[in-house]
Amino acid sequence: MSVSTDGHTVKRYDQQLGDLRSLVLEMGGLVEDQIQRAVQALQDEDLGTAREVIARDHVVNGFDVRADEEVVNLLALRQPVGSDLRLILSMAKTVTDLERIGDEAQKIARMVTHIFDGSSAPNQKLLRDVAGMAKLAANMLHGALDALARMDVDRAIEIACGDEELDTEFQSALRRLVTFMMEDPRTIGHAIDVLFMIKALERIGDHAKNIAEYVVYLVKGKDVRHVSIESLSAAGKG
Amino acid sequence: MSVSTDGHTVKRYDQQLGDLRSLVLEMGGLVEDQIQRAVQALQDEDLGTAREVIARDHVVNGFDVRADEEVVNLLALRQPVGSDLRLILSMAKTVTDLERIGDEAQKIARMVTHIFDGSSAPNQKLLRDVAGMAKLAANMLHGALDALARMDVDRAIEIACGDEELDTEFQSALRRLVTFMMEDPRTIGHAIDVLFMIKALERIGDHAKNIAEYVVYLVKGKDVRHVSIESLSAAGKG
Repeated sequence: MSVSTDGHTVKRYDQQLGDLRSLVLEMGGLVEDQIQRAVQALQDEDLGTAREVIARDHVVNGFDVRADEEVVNLLALRQPVGSDLRLILSMAKTVTDLERIGDEAQKIARMVTHIFDGSSAPNQKLLRDVAGMAKLAANMLHGALDALARMDVDRAIEIACGDEELDTEFQSALRRLVTFMMEDPRTIGHAIDVLFMIKALERIGDHAKNIAEYVVYLVKGKDVRHVSIESLSAAGKG
Repeated sequence: MSVSTDGHTVKRYDQQLGDLRSLVLEMGGLVEDQIQRAVQALQDEDLGTAREVIARDHVVNGFDVRADEEVVNLLALRQPVGSDLRLILSMAKTVTDLERIGDEAQKIARMVTHIFDGSSAPNQKLLRDVAGMAKLAANMLHGALDALARMDVDRAIEIACGDEELDTEFQSALRRLVTFMMEDPRTIGHAIDVLFMIKALERIGDHAKNIAEYVVYLVKGKDVRHVSIESLSAAGKG
């Protein structure tokens, strides 16, 4: 709550906090859509959609700048302490991660334009892991945003722990790509494009994990960013 | 300056601000050292140093947590406005980027242990671009930290604009790696390790650029994160 005891001020402050939260969640929705479209563009060999995703990154960046301004305004005008201060700082960090997720979605879209722009279409075998990893990464982001919207620390911990599954998938997909390249060196060019796509998806998982960790910090007041999964699970029970 | 007019409070506040700055710059020095050692370990085929870099990432993470606590304390206790608020928020963002640069240095060290752990040493040709890119990335980070220490906006703009050179180097190095892989598919495994190293160096450049942009924001009050290089150069003159 605001330190002010003036009812009117408190109400406006709560509204401003709510507006910031809405802005962050709206940005999250946009970024989710960017990932989904970039991966759909790959599946449909749809260069038009891929170019739209690339062009729309500036809208994501616009949210970033607006949210940052809101954060500065709230801190300067309302001078929050305690849990409100933590909430605002967590929102600021979430925005940074969402902006970087937007960059990764844009990279995937760029790889789509690259992979279908050449003379030959890529071997479908190369693409087989992308959809599965994209689903895992998108689910992580959706879950992290859901945990943020509901301040649900158990869900947040579940999401943060889920990052290991995505990392394992990434390592398996990478091994398969290397095998394809060795078996048929003509696939190397396309395989490198796919490698950058799955790397982008793995990073989206890292950012979703960050967002989930901010939720734990918010609710528990514990900074769990650099602790092991075991300690993280323990934090949920603490 | 603090909003307080009490001389003693102002002095302690300035000291706390100075302490935060020192902490951030010390963390920057540590991270610079991590990059330098990781790349040295590659050149010297020195697995021991690589493992030290990996182990020392927890020290970088410790700085991250401490700096974040300092930021929360300063905001809660001192309730800064205007340029002081911007300074503190820029320091918080810088810390996030430094922590991620630390992660990238750790990744390079992991690749060093991976590339020299197999039965055969990598072809030296594969490594030829790493040292040059590492120098560019390290120079960018050093320049960004220097610009931050001196609040030198011209230097910061120079650094931010320098990221294009690193990106171009990355693209050239990537093309050469693909060529090597195609000419000699036995090099694919090692080439992928090198690919992840140069990708990490390219990302270090991105983070250094971010830090340089916070300096511009701090001094000019302009958010230049999502503007073109032309506008960025114009901001320096503005």
